[in-house]
Amino acid sequence: MTKKRIGILTSGGDCAGLNAAIRAVVHRSDLLGWETVGIIDGTAGLLRDPPEYRILTPNEFDGNIMRMGGTILGTTNKGNPFAFPMADGSVKDLSGRIVEGFKALNVDAVIGIGGDGSFAILKKLAQKGGINLVGIPKTIDNDIGMTESSIGFDTAVSVATEALDRLQPTAASHDRVMILEVMGRDAGHIAVSAGISGGADVILIPEIPYSVEHISAKIKQVKDSGRNFALIVVSEAVKTPKGEKIELTYSDGEKRYGGIGHYLSQRIAESTGSETRVTVLGHVQRGSSPTYNDRLLASAFGVKAVDLIKEGKFGRMVAWSNRQVIDVAIEDAIAAYQEVDLNGTLVQTARALGISFGD
Amino acid sequence: MTKKRIGILTSGGDCAGLNAAIRAVVHRSDLLGWETVGIIDGTAGLLRDPPEYRILTPNEFDGNIMRMGGTILGTTNKGNPFAFPMADGSVKDLSGRIVEGFKALNVDAVIGIGGDGSFAILKKLAQKGGINLVGIPKTIDNDIGMTESSIGFDTAVSVATEALDRLQPTAASHDRVMILEVMGRDAGHIAVSAGISGGADVILIPEIPYSVEHISAKIKQVKDSGRNFALIVVSEAVKTPKGEKIELTYSDGEKRYGGIGHYLSQRIAESTGSETRVTVLGHVQRGSSPTYNDRLLASAFGVKAVDLIKEGKFGRMVAWSNRQVIDVAIEDAIAAYQEVDLNGTLVQTARALGISFGD
Amino acid sequence: MTKKRIGILTSGGDCAGLNAAIRAVVHRSDLLGWETVGIIDGTAGLLRDPPEYRILTPNEFDGNIMRMGGTILGTTNKGNPFAFPMADGSVKDLSGRIVEGFKALNVDAVIGIGGDGSFAILKKLAQKGGINLVGIPKTIDNDIGMTESSIGFDTAVSVATEALDRLQPTAASHDRVMILEVMGRDAGHIAVSAGISGGADVILIPEIPYSVEHISAKIKQVKDSGRNFALIVVSEAVKTPKGEKIELTYSDGEKRYGGIGHYLSQRIAESTGSETRVTVLGHVQRGSSPTYNDRLLASAFGVKAVDLIKEGKFGRMVAWSNRQVIDVAIEDAIAAYQEVDLNGTLVQTARALGISFGD
Amino acid sequence: MTKKRIGILTSGGDCAGLNAAIRAVVHRSDLLGWETVGIIDGTAGLLRDPPEYRILTPNEFDGNIMRMGGTILGTTNKGNPFAFPMADGSVKDLSGRIVEGFKALNVDAVIGIGGDGSFAILKKLAQKGGINLVGIPKTIDNDIGMTESSIGFDTAVSVATEALDRLQPTAASHDRVMILEVMGRDAGHIAVSAGISGGADVILIPEIPYSVEHISAKIKQVKDSGRNFALIVVSEAVKTPKGEKIELTYSDGEKRYGGIGHYLSQRIAESTGSETRVTVLGHVQRGSSPTYNDRLLASAFGVKAVDLIKEGKFGRMVAWSNRQVIDVAIEDAIAAYQEVDLNGTLVQTARALGISFGD
Repeated sequence: MTKKRIGILTSGGDCAGLNAAIRAVVHRSDLLGWETVGIIDGTAGLLRDPPEYRILTPNEFDGNIMRMGGTILGTTNKGNPFAFPMADGSVKDLSGRIVEGFKALNVDAVIGIGGDGSFAILKKLAQKGGINLVGIPKTIDNDIGMTESSIGFDTAVSVATEALDRLQPTAASHDRVMILEVMGRDAGHIAVSAGISGGADVILIPEIPYSVEHISAKIKQVKDSGRNFALIVVSEAVKTPKGEKIELTYSDGEKRYGGIGHYLSQRIAESTGSETRVTVLGHVQRGSSPTYNDRLLASAFGVKAVDLIKEGKFGRMVAWSNRQVIDVAIEDAIAAYQEVDLNGTLVQTARALGISFGD
Repeated sequence: MTKKRIGILTSGGDCAGLNAAIRAVVHRSDLLGWETVGIIDGTAGLLRDPPEYRILTPNEFDGNIMRMGGTILGTTNKGNPFAFPMADGSVKDLSGRIVEGFKALNVDAVIGIGGDGSFAILKKLAQKGGINLVGIPKTIDNDIGMTESSIGFDTAVSVATEALDRLQPTAASHDRVMILEVMGRDAGHIAVSAGISGGADVILIPEIPYSVEHISAKIKQVKDSGRNFALIVVSEAVKTPKGEKIELTYSDGEKRYGGIGHYLSQRIAESTGSETRVTVLGHVQRGSSPTYNDRLLASAFGVKAVDLIKEGKFGRMVAWSNRQVIDVAIEDAIAAYQEVDLNGTLVQTARALGISFGD
Repeated sequence: MTKKRIGILTSGGDCAGLNAAIRAVVHRSDLLGWETVGIIDGTAGLLRDPPEYRILTPNEFDGNIMRMGGTILGTTNKGNPFAFPMADGSVKDLSGRIVEGFKALNVDAVIGIGGDGSFAILKKLAQKGGINLVGIPKTIDNDIGMTESSIGFDTAVSVATEALDRLQPTAASHDRVMILEVMGRDAGHIAVSAGISGGADVILIPEIPYSVEHISAKIKQVKDSGRNFALIVVSEAVKTPKGEKIELTYSDGEKRYGGIGHYLSQRIAESTGSETRVTVLGHVQRGSSPTYNDRLLASAFGVKAVDLIKEGKFGRMVAWSNRQVIDVAIEDAIAAYQEVDLNGTLVQTARALGISFGD
Repeated sequence: MTKKRIGILTSGGDCAGLNAAIRAVVHRSDLLGWETVGIIDGTAGLLRDPPEYRILTPNEFDGNIMRMGGTILGTTNKGNPFAFPMADGSVKDLSGRIVEGFKALNVDAVIGIGGDGSFAILKKLAQKGGINLVGIPKTIDNDIGMTESSIGFDTAVSVATEALDRLQPTAASHDRVMILEVMGRDAGHIAVSAGISGGADVILIPEIPYSVEHISAKIKQVKDSGRNFALIVVSEAVKTPKGEKIELTYSDGEKRYGGIGHYLSQRIAESTGSETRVTVLGHVQRGSSPTYNDRLLASAFGVKAVDLIKEGKFGRMVAWSNRQVIDVAIEDAIAAYQEVDLNGTLVQTARALGISFGD
């Protein structure tokens, strides 16, 4: 086997564990006698003139980088290069320039760490440019198919659970219903896991339609049991029951901010007479120090990605299945969106414990 | 000294360390051979028929209660009993009923754990009813005068600092300006301490008028230095620069939610062209497990409060000053509102490090 | 289905997540309209006269008990009741008294939360007494077969990883080799997972023979790469290379304390000339607040255990397999001791990253 | 004022907050238009040929370095340069070479971050070489006089308190007496603060003679009160009651390891019949991420140290007193060793809560 030179980039929303994955790739690559090129700010770095990248060496990771959130390479989620939103408002196909950028790196293969959106774009770029691509799945939403877990999810759930641990005492002290709005895009994974482990009474996820009446009935039941507070977890992508739009308009402008958490807070207060408070957890779910599970996953994924390149297996995404790191076709992973399994152990456990999904 | 019976209540917004204070009172009282009566839900418990309270014993605290946020006694911030907002919309003086409630407890003295608002009310009730009152200061806002610190502040700052630790990597990964809105009511103490220790570039507090232009200039300076992200901490009570109202109106109703964080996010994005994100930290600042400092303070305060009763010193608030627990007149503490000292070491340190207050 | 009454006990070394499991059992049982009897201090409670137990109600768990380490029921690891070490030095079969104790509870079935040692005993007691037994696996060692994970393991690894996060900066500041001795009994699971995610250079586990020479060679390699510190994780049950006894004798008595960590510290210092320090992590691995994963596992296990009773399936242990809660025969689980899989993803990942197992 | 060039070094045992202090110095110096030279590995770096140092720039600190334990400059505690223990066993005065090293840096002044031992040496070197010295106090032991607190103490107490939080549930589950041995050298500050806030029943510190009988009496009292466990905190420097030597001898050699925690564990087990366990917390007290308090202190100290240089005030140590950063003569600080104040609020609070000091 000849000495290789490989590229690596992180793409899409950041999450915890990216640096551990980058480290694993660089360490593994170095042990094989290869060179690793880190592309800066995802594909955005390749649009710059000259393309922005730097050689990554194992010693960079001697300190605590693997223990840090974020990505030392930077990332981008600013648009599809095949239809890129330009500053002047126009839309332009910049894919050619990115392909050129990849080629200028002079690498044998590229490891892309991203979510399904990034993978769809990277795959198209790889096809267009004949680039050897291997994918590592990361997303706090855990919605990538064909893998049990993706980098970042475990940490996001930990942070969300910790928030419930902190909201419970203040809820109990003030006889309140506390609503925690968590991330997760169109999948309710964070909400389900954090909700069960954080002692929620109600968990609302995009996969399960709900009504405010059912939530209120559950709150009432909790109070009738003698408990003076309740905890609700809601996924950010949960819609209003009848699809009514939530709009929060600044008095002095057009910009809007609307959150399902604040909507529910209002409706539940009206409907139950309880004092409610809402916490929108936000970006702390992304930037925290990765849990050991995210670091393990990232380490196994990084090693496997390099080994796939060694074996000449491209167009593959590394994945976790039944205690093992495996690889699957990237297109299969993209196709196999993973939502919450309504018949799976977690949802069934929640229901068996009397947790309401508002349905 | 004869055996005494003392009452204890928590009042106002909850915070971390209340249980450690209650524990200290109960342990100290028990060691003196006294009995401690815990009043439920602050003065609200005394409005119930019959008044709600229970005897507290040291063994209740054998487990981890001192390590928990919140208050096992419950608390209330639902209104001034001298002008209580009744369910029917009227306002009524219920102070007489509360005084009767206190008397029914048959206690020699009452320890009130609260902030300045609660103290003002408790003092008036004590005067009206001839009740022997001792105060223990608690507030995450740290705005109570005559004491260096109050229970709950240290934990709130810890949580806010941790949030900045978590926002920094995600800000850096995405080249963003991250805005963290913290609690603190009309005082900027949490923002100043968390801002300095969390590496903020800009700290906005109610005590210092600011302009968006100054903030933007600081952001520009940061970027010119080669750094791609910035962190801003803003106190919840900070107003818009010209006092314009921030209103966020639900499209389907009249309820409003408005936050200075979201306002600034919009203005700074416009003014700097940077991508901004805002995190409103909320109630996790209250309910977290108390730091060791809050537990130390709570323990020293609890012991001192009981000892003041032993010495027959009433109308006093325990306080922390120059490494010692002392006591001051409650009315002096109420009068001596503590805002951020603009000439103090913290603000001067921040300025000397180039942190902008937007002024 | 008639109303049932079930018993529950925790047995063996405590760990994080036991209270979450007890809570799940009580909540599930209550939702079915059943009654749950908590046996105090494991089988030890049944040896007392009268047997010690109490009815458990859902409201007990309203607060933060599910978030706490330890077990509110107490536990015991003081001896096999079939050959119980009596105070006078004799050995006695007390199994009959325990069986009587179980019968006195008048329960339809008993849920035992324990490790393989406890299960072996409980199974024998169940056979002797005709008791309907269901097992929930818990052990920080993760050595119970037929289940991917047991309650307590995830938290123990988290604490061990956090320790490495804390040792790395001090190791780097002082150019030291830091040795962390972790728990795990005869299995190296904690060491492997914490070692990879905590950035260890060497991981020593009972499953892999090692030599000090190999460790020293790795340390030398690390230094040659330009790094000034190294991290080593060692399982408590790792033996000296040639089986020589480690004895640390008090100068004033016979009691001994001997740890592989201290042994290695000395040998590695001699062999490499490096300054070494050792940290024996100890019981903080057991008593910490459970991670969300341990709470999820505990919740799923608790629900499943009750449902097995509902279905009349006894002699079963609940287990986790491929994202699902399942059940297996207790005797199969006991027989299928789970040691570290030397060909599994974790060990292979570690080796691929250049981590040495000293072999 | 002309542009200056200043040196900075860290010396002695590392602790949390050093990087925050270095950052503050570099930021402040840079804002004044000065240059900062970081000396590597304390005075040890100056013994190398050529002397080891590097220019420090603000951008190095853009990431999370201020949030990390340890010191990016490295440190040394390997010996007094006036009587340096050479590899060949001889002792040599190397002070001249260090002074030359300082001069070669061509700096206007040097900021030394250290404890009293380091300050004594640095002061002597400064006198010998005519170096302008300013000191910043750091030590987890908090034993430096003339300042309320030193960098690193707050974090060490936090970690020790967290350990007690984790030991309590496992102690309660197993009816055990848990002994936690904490650092602190000859001063009991960590033990006192962690002991009170962590709910210890007994706190043993070098400042207070104790007997095992008194400890046992306290344990008995705890058990008589109905509690089944007890927590003991002991400072590492606590001696055996009659000064008898604790020796733990390896069976195969002369190296010794002896800890007061293990000694007490044995004695208390014998004397009370309780099951005891000991945890020696070790270096995790040093390397943890600094608390916000340590970062605040470090920031204020760093700024003040630079400002002292600006004002031409040398031979001073920055200090914290009554909510302000001040400066004192280094020799006064060295002379004013700070042990636990037996009449201070903390010890009095502990006693008032029934905590035993074994006396």
